[in-house]
Amino acid sequence: MDAPIGVFDSGVGGLTVVREIMRQLPSEDVIYFGDTARVPYGSKSKQTVLKYSKQIVRFLMTKKVKAIVVACNTASALALEDMRTDMEVPVVGVVRPGAKMAAEKSKTKSVGIIATEGTVKSGIYTEYIRQIDSDVTVIGKACPLFVPLVEEGLIEDRITDDMVDRYLSELKAYNVDVLVLGCTHYPLLANPIQRYMGENVTLVNPAYETAKELKNILRENGLVCSKDKSPVYDFYVSDGVDKFKSFANSVLPIHVDGVNIIDIESY
Amino acid sequence: MDAPIGVFDSGVGGLTVVREIMRQLPSEDVIYFGDTARVPYGSKSKQTVLKYSKQIVRFLMTKKVKAIVVACNTASALALEDMRTDMEVPVVGVVRPGAKMAAEKSKTKSVGIIATEGTVKSGIYTEYIRQIDSDVTVIGKACPLFVPLVEEGLIEDRITDDMVDRYLSELKAYNVDVLVLGCTHYPLLANPIQRYMGENVTLVNPAYETAKELKNILRENGLVCSKDKSPVYDFYVSDGVDKFKSFANSVLPIHVDGVNIIDIESY
Repeated sequence: MDAPIGVFDSGVGGLTVVREIMRQLPSEDVIYFGDTARVPYGSKSKQTVLKYSKQIVRFLMTKKVKAIVVACNTASALALEDMRTDMEVPVVGVVRPGAKMAAEKSKTKSVGIIATEGTVKSGIYTEYIRQIDSDVTVIGKACPLFVPLVEEGLIEDRITDDMVDRYLSELKAYNVDVLVLGCTHYPLLANPIQRYMGENVTLVNPAYETAKELKNILRENGLVCSKDKSPVYDFYVSDGVDKFKSFANSVLPIHVDGVNIIDIESY
Repeated sequence: MDAPIGVFDSGVGGLTVVREIMRQLPSEDVIYFGDTARVPYGSKSKQTVLKYSKQIVRFLMTKKVKAIVVACNTASALALEDMRTDMEVPVVGVVRPGAKMAAEKSKTKSVGIIATEGTVKSGIYTEYIRQIDSDVTVIGKACPLFVPLVEEGLIEDRITDDMVDRYLSELKAYNVDVLVLGCTHYPLLANPIQRYMGENVTLVNPAYETAKELKNILRENGLVCSKDKSPVYDFYVSDGVDKFKSFANSVLPIHVDGVNIIDIESY
């Protein structure tokens, strides 16, 4: 089926998931929406994140998408279950694939999750991991400064190393052997995080697992793109076209030129 | 006239302006709105900030306010002039009072402005200061990490001192003798900033000057509260009642109990 896949995030972070979809499903068309006018979602309530997510799904449905990827951990954690009930197309979030991978990889049965305040408070990673393996201990930690540090470009910097130390010392003390990067910005800090945690800790980036799950779901539902063709990628945002374009071009393997701005509140 | 004063901000920062209004205009009723669902405004476009500000003004007008205080530097910088044209009540922003104070206080004619990206890019502090004294050199610097550092409670901390050094070294090199704290969160970092800049640099907090200007404008328009009475304070937000309440109670000299949530997108 040749309809596009809809992908959304609170801002630019979800482009790391789009990058994985491009790699694993190279013929599929993608419509991306980044809610750059209302970013970030990480510190907002369930009620608000659910309302925003529903507006975005309504917008994506006008584009006749055949499946939707919630490429935002906070929206996956707070809104996915409530949204799925009245959806006509399959919906994939980033939390369940990340949780599955974490449960499978851990030998010590001690898993760390770093994410936004909303995702950690929801307890959803813990719930999903323990559904797979109830022996696993899950330790969640919100890291609110990581997103602004990434956005300031402070990737290799003593301030970032200092914050990594403060946020992760507790997880290190618990001897976790798997750490889930539960916010789409965090994989950009993989180097300082890996350095601090040590080489024996496996970092899980849910983007990769999410694209894999999407592929399975498209297959199961007979929705895989029928032709081996050049894909079409369309980008929509609620604010700041130029800033988005520049980030997209630093993350994606294609050149992004046209980015469309829409009034998401009207959906 | 006994109608309330409407005050708004992108979130909680504007409560520092409310605190000054409580001090300088102790009989006036206040209706506060914090746009906690769409915070922050500092990195968003003029178009979006103007749209959000107009929705908030429409909400405040339903409360029959007699004047409006834009207690957010970014909204004052990007939206105030465009909003004023079709307003039926006086509107006071935080930028002009802060700029006036800075121009008056500087002896070296070298003034620094620290603010969000949106406020600095607008160039509005420079414009207002140079309208008063065209000999003043104004150096603006965006400090995007200051708000998240304050929200993480890292006020007296080596990370904050490190960021203060990085953001302000250029302003120090220019020998500014006045520094405007051009974002409502920044006065909470006054101690580390003053320590770094030295005692000879005067920090300007626009909140104080804004309450003073509001007082003048109410007088000029015959709008001062006619009775010496106990004031009524009402608080509205677009998300996160409990978080707002806890911040309000740490900033204001009164106990805030009832906070109302509204759907600002419907205005």
